[in-house]
Amino acid sequence: MQAPTITLTTDFGTADGYIAAVKGVLLSRAPEAQIIDLSHEIPAGDIRAAAGLLRRAVPYFPTRCVHLVVVDPGVGGDREILAVDHTLGRFVGPDNGVLDAFLDTAEVVEIARPDLYLEARGSTFHGRDRMAPVAAALAGGTAVDDLGAEAGSPVRLEPLPLERSDTTVHGSVEHIDRFGNVITNIPWRWVEALPPKACTWIGDRPVCRRVTHYAELPEDKPGFLCGSEGTLELARNRASLATAWDLQVGTPVTVSVGGRPS
Amino acid sequence: MQAPTITLTTDFGTADGYIAAVKGVLLSRAPEAQIIDLSHEIPAGDIRAAAGLLRRAVPYFPTRCVHLVVVDPGVGGDREILAVDHTLGRFVGPDNGVLDAFLDTAEVVEIARPDLYLEARGSTFHGRDRMAPVAAALAGGTAVDDLGAEAGSPVRLEPLPLERSDTTVHGSVEHIDRFGNVITNIPWRWVEALPPKACTWIGDRPVCRRVTHYAELPEDKPGFLCGSEGTLELARNRASLATAWDLQVGTPVTVSVGGRPS
Amino acid sequence: MQAPTITLTTDFGTADGYIAAVKGVLLSRAPEAQIIDLSHEIPAGDIRAAAGLLRRAVPYFPTRCVHLVVVDPGVGGDREILAVDHTLGRFVGPDNGVLDAFLDTAEVVEIARPDLYLEARGSTFHGRDRMAPVAAALAGGTAVDDLGAEAGSPVRLEPLPLERSDTTVHGSVEHIDRFGNVITNIPWRWVEALPPKACTWIGDRPVCRRVTHYAELPEDKPGFLCGSEGTLELARNRASLATAWDLQVGTPVTVSVGGRPS
Repeated sequence: MQAPTITLTTDFGTADGYIAAVKGVLLSRAPEAQIIDLSHEIPAGDIRAAAGLLRRAVPYFPTRCVHLVVVDPGVGGDREILAVDHTLGRFVGPDNGVLDAFLDTAEVVEIARPDLYLEARGSTFHGRDRMAPVAAALAGGTAVDDLGAEAGSPVRLEPLPLERSDTTVHGSVEHIDRFGNVITNIPWRWVEALPPKACTWIGDRPVCRRVTHYAELPEDKPGFLCGSEGTLELARNRASLATAWDLQVGTPVTVSVGGRPS
Repeated sequence: MQAPTITLTTDFGTADGYIAAVKGVLLSRAPEAQIIDLSHEIPAGDIRAAAGLLRRAVPYFPTRCVHLVVVDPGVGGDREILAVDHTLGRFVGPDNGVLDAFLDTAEVVEIARPDLYLEARGSTFHGRDRMAPVAAALAGGTAVDDLGAEAGSPVRLEPLPLERSDTTVHGSVEHIDRFGNVITNIPWRWVEALPPKACTWIGDRPVCRRVTHYAELPEDKPGFLCGSEGTLELARNRASLATAWDLQVGTPVTVSVGGRPS
Repeated sequence: MQAPTITLTTDFGTADGYIAAVKGVLLSRAPEAQIIDLSHEIPAGDIRAAAGLLRRAVPYFPTRCVHLVVVDPGVGGDREILAVDHTLGRFVGPDNGVLDAFLDTAEVVEIARPDLYLEARGSTFHGRDRMAPVAAALAGGTAVDDLGAEAGSPVRLEPLPLERSDTTVHGSVEHIDRFGNVITNIPWRWVEALPPKACTWIGDRPVCRRVTHYAELPEDKPGFLCGSEGTLELARNRASLATAWDLQVGTPVTVSVGGRPS
């Protein structure tokens, strides 16, 4: 049988030893498991960033994987911890929206298994004391529905604005990557459905250069293209558009024909 | 038999290829081993930070693990390299205090096994040329006492100040984490032994709000709580207390009843 | 048989989920493989930095490893993707010089295996859509010469200036590490062939203190030594020489006897 695999997505960084302790628990409780780091560089407490990373990356993983997600600013309070059994994989994480992409058509339970938890020192590190032992149990064969009762109404993320008409699409910046590329939530096929002269607007700045890859862009000139998730992306060639234009997640983006959209 | 596991804790960062070379040596010499990154983001040469990370994280690991630690500003000089056999695991690292938490009631030897070392280019990278081959040998079954003679008096870390009376505890900031939380060396049970009105003081700033988790704290208001190591921790909710108050490792912290401690 | 090992070297960082998606593809296509992170902190698009890391680290790896390298500013354009079979290992990466150290006396092919590629969303992420599946195929037993036709003239890196006379060596800064140490391309044996009074010059600044390791250096005083690659290195003890003197990759370095070299 394939060895179980546990992936890790956190906002812990790696300097403090928090993720080290989590890995220790996993190796102790699931000695056969392969541990795979997805990211420990989620910005502190940025639930939407972690949710987006998982939505983009998880579909590429084997469905046998257990994904442990610890971005948990509400740790120790009354938020629940969820276990999710989804066709794309199994998940353990706090009930704060971070698992948003995997809550539909899934089995979602509120974890209640104190027999699995570590003896607590304080209530600030459920990633180590509760979630890691539960993820290890899943990797070892425990079923999600043995972990607790069905969750009533898990916390969902507010979707970013996105709407279309025959001539215009209004969407939002959804992610800004390390290179300063600006990924939106606008499906590229919606862009393709507009007349070919359509430009992308961010505020009063038009971007009309449509390309297929970054290196096509002249230096210092922004363009737009179909990004790696099949959505509209704005970028410069070997330079950060997000920094140059001071863009943020949530900044409105419009694609339209004709002049500046109102 | 469980495959051997080697963990890595360094101040190398990952951009330069130093840790890459170490991993190459480990995979060459211990092909069955699982390699687990604990941290490569220890601040350059910060022995105390690495020692603290290990003290906090190692107890969660299976005792079969070999922990390779390379924070080694004295590399190439007359400091020894140690191998340690402790009930919590086995360790390889420089004799500079970085293994401080694992030197009591342990077998500690000064490594002298040139037959294992790589052919040296320069004397600046014992992590690759000496420590990695020795860690691989331990993972492969070599015993610590086959690596050299007993160490006379390994270097220890100076403990941070910590003392108590019936009404007051004086301690120190021991670690500041990525979130700006301020972890002290004061056992929480010492705080609990004081009258419940006790406040925590940092210089002339009192912190009297006692909580159990971060999210209980109102915005911009600091509080204190039992941290994940069972010690007194000071924090703000979703903001860095360490930055706001410019705190450092070693900053004195007092818990006392009544007014500002003298 | 030893499980296959795939190493990863990218400029992706870890916050965006790009490397997470690549790991998902590898685990899906090569479920037995061990995945080893070398670096995801190559500066964005810095081909020379990635090439140097690989040149320094790969010789320490078992030759059975597959090295996947994604530093690919030309992604989606007409640059080819290469697979390389070299005595030191097998490689997959863009044809932009990043594999420069492994192109001589190697089998080098331009990858053309659309049957292996993922269905494309956009043309900006060949690391996930093309290179990862090919690396997984190599790890699973596919031969390099089954991946495409021989590459005509792969892109090479321009070597940094390096020349010698009986009394002088002229070379270049090749790498600056996390500690601010300045690694040059000057073989240490060339330095040793000069008279022992030779000094190292960077511009009009002489460095005449020759040591064997960093801790020998007095505070604030730079020195030179044989670095971990067997080349001339300049450094300070526990401080960054590169920052203090504002040095860059490519800065000229001279070793000579007598006064300031002209």
